[in-house]
Amino acid sequence: MSTLKAKTKTASLSLLCALVALGCGAARGQSAKSVWVELGTQAGPIPNPTRSEPAHVLLWRDQPILVDVGDGAAEQLAKAHIPIDSIHAVFISHLHFDHTGGLFAFLGMRDQGGGPGRKLITIYGPPGTKAMVDGLRSAMQSGSALLPQKPSDYKVVELSDGSSVSVGDVKVTTVSNSHYLLWRGSGAQPVSLSYRFDLPDRSIVYTGDTGPSANVEKLAHGADLLVSEIMDADTALDELKRDRPGISKVTYNFVRDHFTKEHLTPNQAGLLAAHAGVRALVLTHFGGATGYPDQIARLTKVIGENFHGSIRFATDLDQF
Amino acid sequence: MSTLKAKTKTASLSLLCALVALGCGAARGQSAKSVWVELGTQAGPIPNPTRSEPAHVLLWRDQPILVDVGDGAAEQLAKAHIPIDSIHAVFISHLHFDHTGGLFAFLGMRDQGGGPGRKLITIYGPPGTKAMVDGLRSAMQSGSALLPQKPSDYKVVELSDGSSVSVGDVKVTTVSNSHYLLWRGSGAQPVSLSYRFDLPDRSIVYTGDTGPSANVEKLAHGADLLVSEIMDADTALDELKRDRPGISKVTYNFVRDHFTKEHLTPNQAGLLAAHAGVRALVLTHFGGATGYPDQIARLTKVIGENFHGSIRFATDLDQF
Repeated sequence: MSTLKAKTKTASLSLLCALVALGCGAARGQSAKSVWVELGTQAGPIPNPTRSEPAHVLLWRDQPILVDVGDGAAEQLAKAHIPIDSIHAVFISHLHFDHTGGLFAFLGMRDQGGGPGRKLITIYGPPGTKAMVDGLRSAMQSGSALLPQKPSDYKVVELSDGSSVSVGDVKVTTVSNSHYLLWRGSGAQPVSLSYRFDLPDRSIVYTGDTGPSANVEKLAHGADLLVSEIMDADTALDELKRDRPGISKVTYNFVRDHFTKEHLTPNQAGLLAAHAGVRALVLTHFGGATGYPDQIARLTKVIGENFHGSIRFATDLDQF
Repeated sequence: MSTLKAKTKTASLSLLCALVALGCGAARGQSAKSVWVELGTQAGPIPNPTRSEPAHVLLWRDQPILVDVGDGAAEQLAKAHIPIDSIHAVFISHLHFDHTGGLFAFLGMRDQGGGPGRKLITIYGPPGTKAMVDGLRSAMQSGSALLPQKPSDYKVVELSDGSSVSVGDVKVTTVSNSHYLLWRGSGAQPVSLSYRFDLPDRSIVYTGDTGPSANVEKLAHGADLLVSEIMDADTALDELKRDRPGISKVTYNFVRDHFTKEHLTPNQAGLLAAHAGVRALVLTHFGGATGYPDQIARLTKVIGENFHGSIRFATDLDQF
């Protein structure tokens, strides 16, 4: 198209998008005190009818930070009244698709909407993140050619155990954890990260997916808030024995090891919070847990045997 | 890892996934009569807090067909009790990200879950679909390396005006429509497709995104059900004039043309249904429409001036 036509179209579509966006409210992700929002509290990879896949957002002043991007993260952001163009930093804990699946929609719709806040976006994650994002950008080329506006500039920063970066006045420190423990010795060396966000008003640690881990305990030392995954292994293993009475011992033991060494049982989550000396604990990423009140009460009691601070179980869109 | 260890891990994780999937029910997408399920009824690209992005599924016997894959489509499938591994055919109408954004999560979680029904998946769409899917598969490599099971085999079939393919005993015919009308003469030649599904029990036409189009009228001729997009242009243009009193005539006219030539106003949707002689009309892909009852009543009246069959406005998870 002609330059004039292209410019008119760009201006018009931006206006159109701003118009369609009116329902999003005026929040634009600004917050005077830090707020941790649970966008999705379900463990994947099987999509769940009542909880969204893992995604979280840390609201701080005008720089909301997206932490993991499960399927439907863009829609969950809308439910939390956070415009997708207000986000310029994304942290990925690990590359299992339940934590990354929503990234294509997030990046694509952010570009297609062409909102006024859209600028350079930086995606942080473990080794492999750059290859993933490059693939997504390649996948976006056909669709981006149908948009009058230019795609966002983007940057990928791969992190490893002990990395530390700053996003504005938020210091982000990461360690590798034990989520891929059973892969050790296999030749593959996948990395799963936990993050600590030190903000001017408080410190928040997000475990991502992990089993018991001295690294994570150290990372979480003295944090104001620990957002931890949880796996109700007892319930899940009971169901396994009930539903598969002929299960081999080898298979049963593998599943048990996965649940208890690569994820955190309620007891292990309580121990982590106690050893780290955090002030408050929020449980998310429900695996083997239905979230029904009787189960929550039972799990809270188990956690409380070791951890005596505040214990809360998150549901989608809860704020902490 | 050793072959034995790898095999055990594969078997174990499949079992694990089957276990975690128990909540999905026994539906597995089977249906003796065809059912059209609206997974997402919102027009993108701005995510909406009350309606999911465009996605639909056609249930027919043991071969459910996914039609467009907006953000959160995998989670919407879970809400409709349709396991993601039961789907082996996906049709994409066009490459705007509100219709494709959920594909990365869908493909990734389907592989990660490793469910028992997972086999070759075929993705049909306009030119550019292969490049998009190839990019997604490239993006998946880092994450797939963390899975014990092999990624799904996949095939992409690019369609153009007049193409016809079969999925089992469902005949699918497509035409190009007018959604990219304003791009004509720009050098770019994007294609947006509408689909007709001829099943043994009835015929269903899905407009995708389109403006008035003789091709779509012809495609929809005599169909039992027309699933049409809708744009409440009058409301949207009134809001535009109210919110942007200084808008230039050029920009206003462009937006008006986009709304009324590249999308379907209520009057145009009614004319399409009437001219095609369809039996029933379902409206989806709400643009400029809030879905409040008074608006629905007003739009129904406008459509009813031309079309005298059944008129229904879809909400997420409605079945037709």
